[in-house]
Amino acid sequence: MFALTILGNNSAVPAFGRNPTAQVLQTQDELFLIDCGEGTQLQLSKYKIRRSKINHIFISHLHGDHYFGLIGLLTSMSLLSRTQDLHLHAPPLLQQIIDLQLQAASTTLNYKVHFHPLTGEGLIANTSKISVECFQVKHRIDCWGFIFREIKNPRSVIPERAKSYEIPAAFFEHLKKGADYRTKKGVIIPNEEVTVANASPRSYAYCADTIYDISLAEKVKGVDLMYHEATYLKEEHIRAAERFHSTTEQAAEVAKKGEVKKLLIGHFSSRYELLDEFLLEAKEVFDNTELALEGVCFTV
Amino acid sequence: MFALTILGNNSAVPAFGRNPTAQVLQTQDELFLIDCGEGTQLQLSKYKIRRSKINHIFISHLHGDHYFGLIGLLTSMSLLSRTQDLHLHAPPLLQQIIDLQLQAASTTLNYKVHFHPLTGEGLIANTSKISVECFQVKHRIDCWGFIFREIKNPRSVIPERAKSYEIPAAFFEHLKKGADYRTKKGVIIPNEEVTVANASPRSYAYCADTIYDISLAEKVKGVDLMYHEATYLKEEHIRAAERFHSTTEQAAEVAKKGEVKKLLIGHFSSRYELLDEFLLEAKEVFDNTELALEGVCFTV
Repeated sequence: MFALTILGNNSAVPAFGRNPTAQVLQTQDELFLIDCGEGTQLQLSKYKIRRSKINHIFISHLHGDHYFGLIGLLTSMSLLSRTQDLHLHAPPLLQQIIDLQLQAASTTLNYKVHFHPLTGEGLIANTSKISVECFQVKHRIDCWGFIFREIKNPRSVIPERAKSYEIPAAFFEHLKKGADYRTKKGVIIPNEEVTVANASPRSYAYCADTIYDISLAEKVKGVDLMYHEATYLKEEHIRAAERFHSTTEQAAEVAKKGEVKKLLIGHFSSRYELLDEFLLEAKEVFDNTELALEGVCFTV
Repeated sequence: MFALTILGNNSAVPAFGRNPTAQVLQTQDELFLIDCGEGTQLQLSKYKIRRSKINHIFISHLHGDHYFGLIGLLTSMSLLSRTQDLHLHAPPLLQQIIDLQLQAASTTLNYKVHFHPLTGEGLIANTSKISVECFQVKHRIDCWGFIFREIKNPRSVIPERAKSYEIPAAFFEHLKKGADYRTKKGVIIPNEEVTVANASPRSYAYCADTIYDISLAEKVKGVDLMYHEATYLKEEHIRAAERFHSTTEQAAEVAKKGEVKKLLIGHFSSRYELLDEFLLEAKEVFDNTELALEGVCFTV
């Protein structure tokens, strides 16, 4: 399981029933919340997403449409008796904002929040099955993108086969990485005899809010799914640049140059009621594009 | 026009589709927003309430279910090109929270916010037609109630009649207050000849979150409409007291002793899906009670 559910896709002021940015990446064991605009806790309830399975939250930047729902979610988790630790990855100032709000309410959360300030590119989280890297994007304020990658051995052991050759369980980790086995008598059991190849690890890149920056293509190279903002249609490229946002065409250019497998576009400006044109324009440059529509779950 | 619209009525964690606390008092000329839980800006859109007519916002206390929607609303007002001044009446610490959030976003609002910290009981706002007083209530943290009263002259001038007695317009303000007019020749024109009595000024008291405190009855004495929280059913009076909240019965006792004309109860705990029992219990003590249901407009 490696699937992304969209909880909101609008920029700035909510409009036409579209909520501000929030997404959930669902993997076998846990959920990763990416950005948390106002109302995210209600969206989680609406789409029956279990907040108890969220152990990591990633906030790209401190514009309100990406984090105003966070304090409500954190508070509710506590009221709902969460005790499990939570990891919060965000720009440094967010810690101060949260602390001040908890202090004003004279409240202590029931669970521990590990605050991980985003200060440089690289690996920021590593669960047993997913690694997360962050990378800088160019926006009006400090802003970060995230890449989620499955951690997977290239091969899986076929236990009955391994047993039939009397390979000890202690050697299985080597088998998963592709090693052959040498018996005590010196016979070589080729790896392919006792393992099968795994599908390659899946990956998702979230590019947050960014001005058009083709150098992003290098950072997201070859991911299975990339979300890139497309706040405006292509005719508004001057306005987009002034506001450190991108157009449909620009998002698609990054996808094409980055050779990603699929592109999702979102963060639509409140000036647009209909979104058809967004899809058409992006597809002209990069065909495998979809709109990040609320409630839709994109399985990788 | 003196009417209250409910935008949210749930306590703490949103549940059963019920939103956190927010209400709008609508008068002839302007709107007064009372508390602003998460999602209030969406609720304003849903019920087609014009945010441009809101010039005063009142925040009772700094528990999140009463103000987490404020920063989003303020930011959106700016993005929607508001230029008109806004008056914000709230506990002092809120200013610091808002300033920090604006600083984090590197944002300046398009309009001026006049922050009026709530520090003592008494008159806090006075538009030409409405006066607002605040009073302390007893909650786990610093918490305020508000009373809105129409400012009205006791009588209205009948212009044709006044003209027929050649009463100068400059004397109308005295007529509205009930004075008789004396002509140059010394003839007394009785006030009743040229005026009609106005309906008495209407009033609304919002009691915010409070433990049961019968002394509130004095503060809200005789208002036309009183909102009093009723977080729990009466059997939960011990839990209510522990959490500085009230029950149905307690809210109704305050209404009865305060001789208010009508009682609204709200701030229902997320443990209750159905609300029928709340109404029945309150009505046993104070018959003219209604549930503060979302979207309902109570005209005084």
